[in-house]
Amino acid sequence: MVATSRIEVPSAWYNVTADLPFALPPDIPQIRTPADPARQEMGLPEGLKLQIPLALVRQMSSRQREIAIPDPVRERYRSWRPTPLVRALRLERQIGTRARLYYKYEGGNGSGSHKLCTALAQAYYYAQAGVERLTTGTGAGQWGTALAIGCQEFGLACKVYMVARSFREKPYRKTMMRLSRAEVVPSPSGDTAAGAALRARAGLDAGNIAFAVTEALEDALATPGTQLAVGSGEGYAILHSTVLGLEARDQMSQDFGEAPDIVIGSLGAGSNFGGIAMPFVGDKIRHGSRVRCISVEPQGCPKLTRGAYRYDVTDGSGVTPLQKMYTLGSQFRTAGKHVGGLRYHACSKLISALYHHRLIEAVAYGQSDVFASAARFYAAEGILPAPESAHAVHAAIREAQAADAEGRAPAILFCLSGHGLLDLSAYDEYLEGDLGDVEVTDDEIARSLALVPDVPSPDRARTDAVAVGRVG
Amino acid sequence: MVATSRIEVPSAWYNVTADLPFALPPDIPQIRTPADPARQEMGLPEGLKLQIPLALVRQMSSRQREIAIPDPVRERYRSWRPTPLVRALRLERQIGTRARLYYKYEGGNGSGSHKLCTALAQAYYYAQAGVERLTTGTGAGQWGTALAIGCQEFGLACKVYMVARSFREKPYRKTMMRLSRAEVVPSPSGDTAAGAALRARAGLDAGNIAFAVTEALEDALATPGTQLAVGSGEGYAILHSTVLGLEARDQMSQDFGEAPDIVIGSLGAGSNFGGIAMPFVGDKIRHGSRVRCISVEPQGCPKLTRGAYRYDVTDGSGVTPLQKMYTLGSQFRTAGKHVGGLRYHACSKLISALYHHRLIEAVAYGQSDVFASAARFYAAEGILPAPESAHAVHAAIREAQAADAEGRAPAILFCLSGHGLLDLSAYDEYLEGDLGDVEVTDDEIARSLALVPDVPSPDRARTDAVAVGRVG
Repeated sequence: MVATSRIEVPSAWYNVTADLPFALPPDIPQIRTPADPARQEMGLPEGLKLQIPLALVRQMSSRQREIAIPDPVRERYRSWRPTPLVRALRLERQIGTRARLYYKYEGGNGSGSHKLCTALAQAYYYAQAGVERLTTGTGAGQWGTALAIGCQEFGLACKVYMVARSFREKPYRKTMMRLSRAEVVPSPSGDTAAGAALRARAGLDAGNIAFAVTEALEDALATPGTQLAVGSGEGYAILHSTVLGLEARDQMSQDFGEAPDIVIGSLGAGSNFGGIAMPFVGDKIRHGSRVRCISVEPQGCPKLTRGAYRYDVTDGSGVTPLQKMYTLGSQFRTAGKHVGGLRYHACSKLISALYHHRLIEAVAYGQSDVFASAARFYAAEGILPAPESAHAVHAAIREAQAADAEGRAPAILFCLSGHGLLDLSAYDEYLEGDLGDVEVTDDEIARSLALVPDVPSPDRARTDAVAVGRVG
Repeated sequence: MVATSRIEVPSAWYNVTADLPFALPPDIPQIRTPADPARQEMGLPEGLKLQIPLALVRQMSSRQREIAIPDPVRERYRSWRPTPLVRALRLERQIGTRARLYYKYEGGNGSGSHKLCTALAQAYYYAQAGVERLTTGTGAGQWGTALAIGCQEFGLACKVYMVARSFREKPYRKTMMRLSRAEVVPSPSGDTAAGAALRARAGLDAGNIAFAVTEALEDALATPGTQLAVGSGEGYAILHSTVLGLEARDQMSQDFGEAPDIVIGSLGAGSNFGGIAMPFVGDKIRHGSRVRCISVEPQGCPKLTRGAYRYDVTDGSGVTPLQKMYTLGSQFRTAGKHVGGLRYHACSKLISALYHHRLIEAVAYGQSDVFASAARFYAAEGILPAPESAHAVHAAIREAQAADAEGRAPAILFCLSGHGLLDLSAYDEYLEGDLGDVEVTDDEIARSLALVPDVPSPDRARTDAVAVGRVG
């Protein structure tokens, strides 16, 4: 059952930092650490700063509750938003729950996920700042696909460095990006000094997402008019994604006459969970609402549930500031086969602080359960969830079952952040019985955390805004 | 701009045959012809009849204008219908037309195309008739995916014989079918006598869609409780697909306050074009509406624009009746590389008769133009069209441009019958410049038509209903 009225696309993003009852730990400038060979490979001079449009710099430090969405961005949002808010009646019936399950479906745009919300905004601000070309690194390609669309929309050229293994094994994300006129190369590529060196030394399969970002940065520094778009894990990315939660809150209220008791989102770096949950976290803080906001991470990458709350790097570029986050360490790797996405080693400082201050909850689930719930959702609702989104599906089902056991009948809202039609190889492994669960030992986590740099206690007066440079 | 009001899912399908100002040519029983080696391979006894549920038999001969949609089917329709009717404002702007372009989007269900409308209905009627298991043949897998969902919904087992080359090159359609619990095997398979023989004699790549149907039929005849679901080209498949046009007519009227001047649908066997166009053809016949209904076929398979109107076989099973159709002959093969779908050699007798009587129009376009329009549509509207659907996109753009040149500003409705996210290999070939246009020579068509069997003039008293058997 789809929401029947047509709410408006929000005119402003919701900036939860304006309402926080605590200060976010300040960032500290990057220090070169010996832990990451990719950073050494690049050989960039010390003291480099990312160049970020002033508008984004301001958004990172703003204490304004509502930040207006620029007209061209909002107009583009309107080409596919508001997205559907659906009551999952068939799923409810199939699991026999008394809970009411609602999902906000974000897969119906050209990128196939919620990431287009921030990709469009970022491309817009870079274009406004006079930038002519953006580079980025992408793993499986979801972020690259979204940024390619954003760049095409606002007249920017775009080059995506895609982890070579994904480039080979997921060729169709590459096709999608090329349809949006982006240039896509496998990383390590022959197009940068760092890429050529790694390729010669260790071959194509030595790449990873951190190294792809490294190559994108080298390209941006070497090419006039070019900047690096870091990705979807920044604070402004969460801000831009709050249209999800704002719309969902309006749709639940206007079309179904209720507010959610539980809000669920999957947790990678933060834009997925943050996008759906922040408006409700704001309601908790400002109005004492008792809504529970639950982030879902994979057991194979359990940063909130098993990570440490400390300063760490956000990427492999070696030039972005260190942030205080729940982290498993940027060198964290699992031994098992993890196909479910949400692999980022840490979680944005905003989400981390909210968890630290107990304003949100966190759960972790194994991928075999997650894929089973995804297949169930597909049979019931006719949408194949992206593996990332499937974590939220599974958590929603588990919360519904727990409520049934306790005689409660909550309204549960979850974010179905994208479709899985370009992730069918993972479903194939699930059907073949090749997906076990990834067991992460305490030792693995401890070994990885031991590589996180020790940093001096930050100067409390330093703000985010001075830790990066700016363009425009 | 999406339609804003919520119309109801129709309670009845529209049966245009009730309004036809002419009689459809009767079918005639199959005669064994030497042309198709696959049919000989199967070695079925003469006189076999397809077993079809009584409800479907009746629908094929009904003169009732409205045929009620059974409640369980309509309820399932309501899980994703009404589908969106969208005004393509961004596309209009990008091509600079004064025409108003509307598309009916059918890709948002679990099968990814309009074919689920009839697959659900067929599965329902077979289940009602006591059948426990359906078999079918599929080429690229779109029909198989839809039928698998239909079978899962109504508790039937399902086995799909998928052309081996597609099985290998398009593995993800197979994954989708397996998610709906269908058994999928490459055809020729080792599971039937015919399949094993062809496989041994000529290898896996000797299969085609006609042979896959042949295997599905052998399986159905050999397995108790099993029947063959022929596919989406039957008259009842067009009937079940009319929910598309009925909804679109209501949505255009209620939400946009107009009726289309031009209705466009891609033409494979007929359910796509027939589904969107039949209600408007009915308006022409009954109310003298001047709407133009245009079917679009690929230049590589030009049955309406260059085929002959004569009796031919509808599939390779050797047991289905012959129908009078526009056909290129069931042995028609193109020399060029044709990736755009819509490969069926003929077109249903209903659509053929409408064309013969000039109630509809037909155009054919080359695949390189079609893919260019599809890429343009993706950039503008954020939905990647299935190659089949892209033909309608291209025709709509061409009609808009023609109208601009003549100073007209028509409302153009077209069917975006499915998404192309499982067809990205074709887009890859387009981007690589590997797609030429398939030039079909008059000689090729003449040679193929020479293999169409000569049949005696049919007995006019014979009706469709007696040309097939029935179950239940």
